[in-house]
Order: sequence, then C-alpha cells, then structure tokens
Amino acid sequence: MSLSHPGRRCPGIPAGRLEALRSRIHRKSLDGYLVTGPHDQFHLTGFDGEDGAALILPRRVCLVTDGRFAEAAARQAPWARAVVRTVPLARAIGDLLTRSRLKRVGFEPADMSVALHREIRRACPGVRLVPLPDAVRDLRICKDAAEVAAIERAIRVAEKAFGRVLRRVRPGMTERQLAGELEHEMVRQGADGPAFPTIVAEGPNASLPHARPGQRVLRPGSAVLIDWGARVGHYCSDLTRVVFVRKIPPRIGRMYALVRAAQESAIAAIRPGQAMKAVDAEARRRLRQGGMERRFTHGLGHGLGLQVHEAPSLSARSTGSLKPGMVVTVEPGVYVPGVGGVRIEDDVLVTQEGCRVLSRLSSRAEDFIVGL
Amino acid sequence: MSLSHPGRRCPGIPAGRLEALRSRIHRKSLDGYLVTGPHDQFHLTGFDGEDGAALILPRRVCLVTDGRFAEAAARQAPWARAVVRTVPLARAIGDLLTRSRLKRVGFEPADMSVALHREIRRACPGVRLVPLPDAVRDLRICKDAAEVAAIERAIRVAEKAFGRVLRRVRPGMTERQLAGELEHEMVRQGADGPAFPTIVAEGPNASLPHARPGQRVLRPGSAVLIDWGARVGHYCSDLTRVVFVRKIPPRIGRMYALVRAAQESAIAAIRPGQAMKAVDAEARRRLRQGGMERRFTHGLGHGLGLQVHEAPSLSARSTGSLKPGMVVTVEPGVYVPGVGGVRIEDDVLVTQEGCRVLSRLSSRAEDFIVGL
Repeated sequence: MSLSHPGRRCPGIPAGRLEALRSRIHRKSLDGYLVTGPHDQFHLTGFDGEDGAALILPRRVCLVTDGRFAEAAARQAPWARAVVRTVPLARAIGDLLTRSRLKRVGFEPADMSVALHREIRRACPGVRLVPLPDAVRDLRICKDAAEVAAIERAIRVAEKAFGRVLRRVRPGMTERQLAGELEHEMVRQGADGPAFPTIVAEGPNASLPHARPGQRVLRPGSAVLIDWGARVGHYCSDLTRVVFVRKIPPRIGRMYALVRAAQESAIAAIRPGQAMKAVDAEARRRLRQGGMERRFTHGLGHGLGLQVHEAPSLSARSTGSLKPGMVVTVEPGVYVPGVGGVRIEDDVLVTQEGCRVLSRLSSRAEDFIVGL
Repeated sequence: MSLSHPGRRCPGIPAGRLEALRSRIHRKSLDGYLVTGPHDQFHLTGFDGEDGAALILPRRVCLVTDGRFAEAAARQAPWARAVVRTVPLARAIGDLLTRSRLKRVGFEPADMSVALHREIRRACPGVRLVPLPDAVRDLRICKDAAEVAAIERAIRVAEKAFGRVLRRVRPGMTERQLAGELEHEMVRQGADGPAFPTIVAEGPNASLPHARPGQRVLRPGSAVLIDWGARVGHYCSDLTRVVFVRKIPPRIGRMYALVRAAQESAIAAIRPGQAMKAVDAEARRRLRQGGMERRFTHGLGHGLGLQVHEAPSLSARSTGSLKPGMVVTVEPGVYVPGVGGVRIEDDVLVTQEGCRVLSRLSSRAEDFIVGL
C-alpha cells in the first residue's frame, strides 16, 4: 500500500499508530500484518477480548474472535471488521488470509507459538508468514500523552493504596496478609487488579529479589521489602519501597542510604540521547563507591506500559539510547543473603529536556517507619 | 534409553511420571525432551521458578534458570542438575543441547514461541527439534491421589471464602467491590491468589459469559453470577453460583431450575468409558426439554489442575472418553441478552466406579438469597 492511502479513520486509536505499522509493512513488501499478542492488539485496535487476533491490512483491520467477545469487539472497535469464529483459531485465521488473497503476511514471532504457526500454515498453504520481530513493540516503546496519563493513574492508585495499608501494618502480620491487604486496597482505589503478584519479603527473605510472600511474621525491627503495582485501564505501575517496623536496623539503614543515592544518581543521568547502559552504569558506579556493586544482581530497570515488563531494558547489556516518551522503572537494589535486601523503585518518564519522575512517594527511610 | 534404566530417583515426584515421558521419548527415537512451559515443568520436576526450562534426558534432568531462581531450583529439585544461565535463554538451552551431544530433542509446540524456536535452532544448528504435542499434558490429564487432594484444598478455600463474603453482601455494593472482597478472602483463607480473574456479573451483565466486574450496583432483586476459584499450592479450583439479593426474580428462577436439572443430568452421566461428548449432550438434552438449548452457547466443561483450563474438554466436539482420575468442571449455563444469565459450576472427579463431586456447595437457589 502507499502512504497516500491512510486507510479508514479509527476513532479511539491515535491516527499515527496504525499508519506507522502500515508504512513498515509496506517497506517490507508485506500484504498485511497478523497480530496474535493481546497487548499489541489492544494498542492497535482498542479491543481487549481474551480470544482474538487482528489482521492489519492497508485499508482495513479485521478482528478475529469468538462469540464470547463479539459484543466487546463491536463496541471497542466499531470501525474494524469483526470475524466471529466458530472453528478453531488457526483455521479462522487461515480462512481469513486466504479469502483476503494475501501472499506475504508479517507476524510477531514472540507472540505466536510453534503450534499455532504450524496450524495456520496448514490452513492456508499459499500464504507466506514472515516473522517481523518487534514491529508493534517498537511503536509501544515511546508513550503518547494519553498513555503517560494512564500510567500516572496506575501509579496514583498504587501509591494511595500503599499509604492506606501502611497505616494498618502491625507486628504479627504475615507477609501474605500484607500482600493481600495491599492488593485488595488497590482494587478499592480503582485498580482492575494488581499489575503483577505483589512481593512482600520480610528480613532475610528480601535478599531473594523475587521472593513470594509467605507465612513469615513481621516483628519490631523487621525491614520489609514491598514491590507492588496496579493495573488501571490496561496500564501498569511498578514501585518498590522498604518499610521498617518501628525502627530501622542499622545495617539495613546503611544499605538503604547507598541504594537511595544510587537511584538519585541514575535518575539524574536520564535524558534523551543518553545511552541506556550509561544510566545502569551510573547506579553501579555509586554502589561501587559504597563497596556494594557486586550485591546489585539485576538490571537497573525496564519499560512500563501495557505490560509491567516491556522494552526498553536499562542494563549493562542495553544497546540503545533514551528517547522522549519512554517510561522506565529505576530500581537499584542490594541483596545480602542471610541479612536482607533493599530496593527502591520509581517510574520515570523521559521528556524532551530530561526526565520527570512520575511516582510521588518519598524515598526517605524515616518516612516508612510503620507499626507504631 | 531403555525402560530397564529408570533414571535417578527424584524425591517429591511420583516415580511413574518421568518414566512415562521417558518411555514416550524412547518410542519416538528422541534423545531427550525440552520442557519450556511452566506447568509441564512443575509437573515433572516440582520446580516453579518463573525463569526456566527443563531438559529431560534418559538418566537425568537439567534445569536451566537464572540467578533469581537458582536457590529455588536447588531446594525444589535437588536431584536435578541446575544450569544457572548468564546468557539469553535460547543460548543457554542451545549450549546445553550441544554439550549433551543430543541429535533429536522433542518439545511442546504449544509452549514455545516461534521466536524462541528460531533462536534455539540458531544456537545449536546440529540439533533437530521435534514437535511432540501434548506429551506432558497427556500425563497431566489423569490426576493421582495427591493431585486430587490438592484440588480439593483449592476448592475448600474457595468455598469457605465464598460463604464468608456472602454474609457481607449488601445492596449498594458494586460488582467490583464484591469481586475484590472475594479475592481477598480467598487469600485470607490460604490461597496463593485467585486462580483466574473473578467474574461478578449483575443482572443483564450475566448474559455475557465472560463479563468483567465493573461499577454496576447490586440492588434488591438482583441476580448476580459469580465465577471464582482459588490457587492453592499450584492447583486450581473453579466454581460458579448465582446469588440473589433478597429475592429470586421469577424468570431467572425458572432458568436456574432448568440449568440445575441439566447439571444434575450431566453429572449422573459421568463414569469411566463414557464419551465426553455424551456428557455434554446430556446437559443439552435437558435444556432442550425446557426450550433453552440454544441459550447454552459454550462447552459443558474442561479439565482442572495446575491450570484452570486444561485437557480434557467436555463439548460437542470432544472425541475421547472419560478415564478415572480426570477432574473436570461441569458448568451448563443459559444466557438471555438484556435479561441475564445463569450458570452453575462444580468440579467433578471421575472415579473407578463413576464420579465424585469434589465441591460441596449447595446448588439450591434458595440457599443463595443474600443481603437480608
């Protein structure tokens, strides 16, 4: 297709979004693009049914779904052609590709299983499926104003719920109780649900960066690492704080001060054009000054949007540079087995001039002494 | 490998489980089997880390994971060889396959993305990856006694939470509040979390079989469809009831009586050797007698275990027959747009003699009048 044929207008979807994909399809000499990942599909069409695939053609968009989600498709993307399937998904897609007389169709190889790929090929042997990695993920990497506002709503809900739950923390609570309270309070504050399973890790448990909340009990002197986020209107937030039951254990307090300084240094390095790995290096440099660099066992951060982990990644292996509109987590941490762990995580927007920290929670340790 | 070499003993994993897979690998002339799905991996090894792949060889099992889950791998499957990766997953798997001098390795095509498949092939060009669909899912389809007990625990938690929350239902609550209360109460009762996003659908909303809970308010006379389940120790429960705020609307009451009769007829037809589609047909036959067959727009039920939807499926298109150890949902429903919907769902074990309904909730409409 040619760029002079911008396709039909699609209310609710920013005009440039489908066009950017279409121009990439055109450059790759493809006849269309098949979307089988739910997040890519929502980004391009606004349709969020659990059963679905979207076919992006030069002048129209087809949504394949089943009867359970037909009404949602009609309501969320009335401008698209809905194909309500009564046969298995692969056959419905194969029939649609055949009927549309396509020869070469792009797809996201990370979002299609080998099984579905084989079944679609069997259902339409004349169509060539061409892997085009990251075609839609590349579009999702820089957020527009509405998306930033949606992420900010998800942050506000997470922050508000956190503040309310902290007032209820008492010695004797278990990690799991606290996680349950926080997830429920996020829903009360307007979340569709938690953006990921909440981590609440008391004392030495916090040295496992992905601990699951269990029956460990909070005691006076506990340092408790909490990593939580809300999903609101499809967008995610992701935050981490350490809270202290009645007092700050001195050793954890020293780790905390160092991690906080590392986070501040890293955030100060965020601006358009900056190499992503330089931001990660900045946090590591600061931790090295405190002798803790080797205790920082993961990357500095990740993109945030429809998914809680998405591109870009801020780590020592990152290759790109920051662009305005990217929203990333900045979450340095240090973990000492048998002792505990500290991580501080905020969500940061890359702006035209530098950056803006979207989350508003304090990061002073003294502000998170609870259970008094 | 030969069946006379049963491999090392793997404490915690029933002896026959790995051997059944190994004998299938052997029959297919494969050198090993690569597991990339988390549920299949847990079933075979007991390891539940979020980053992982398992390689099943004739005499040993290797677990590929990253540093975050290395400790969990060592604790959960000490008999397996842990390979803690520092390179991307595909390369770590490719290196392992190459080092193990394998020629033909089976894998589950539904659990591997086209992207991962391409990357693994690139990382070990000398190894042939052979799709072997359902190799582990076939093993998971019939539950052993420990698995049935785990599912029963998940059912008990869901039932207990439901009973407690029903006592708190009042007119004025929204669908979402009720869903949030129920999910939180399941965690309080010992769940790791809900097995799936809870459905609470008031009045006409219940005519959408997969409605999402929203801001609709419960009023006197509301019929509210609730579909919920708990995940406890990795296993799921899945139940549906309709509750009535203060009174039963007559039209919904008639639909309810018919659905209840259909469920009873279907359960009475469950026994080993019975064709799965015959059980589905039995529910439809009963609904047809009440003139509602065409309002039953989905299959009768599905398998339940590590996943909330797994094999087998009980529908008009099912081809197999029931075997002892299968655990299935039986969930007929009727949906009338603009009016409402009724679904009643219980979890049923196929036994040597017939079946046993694992869930213990009443299905009398009068027992679910709430908000008095």
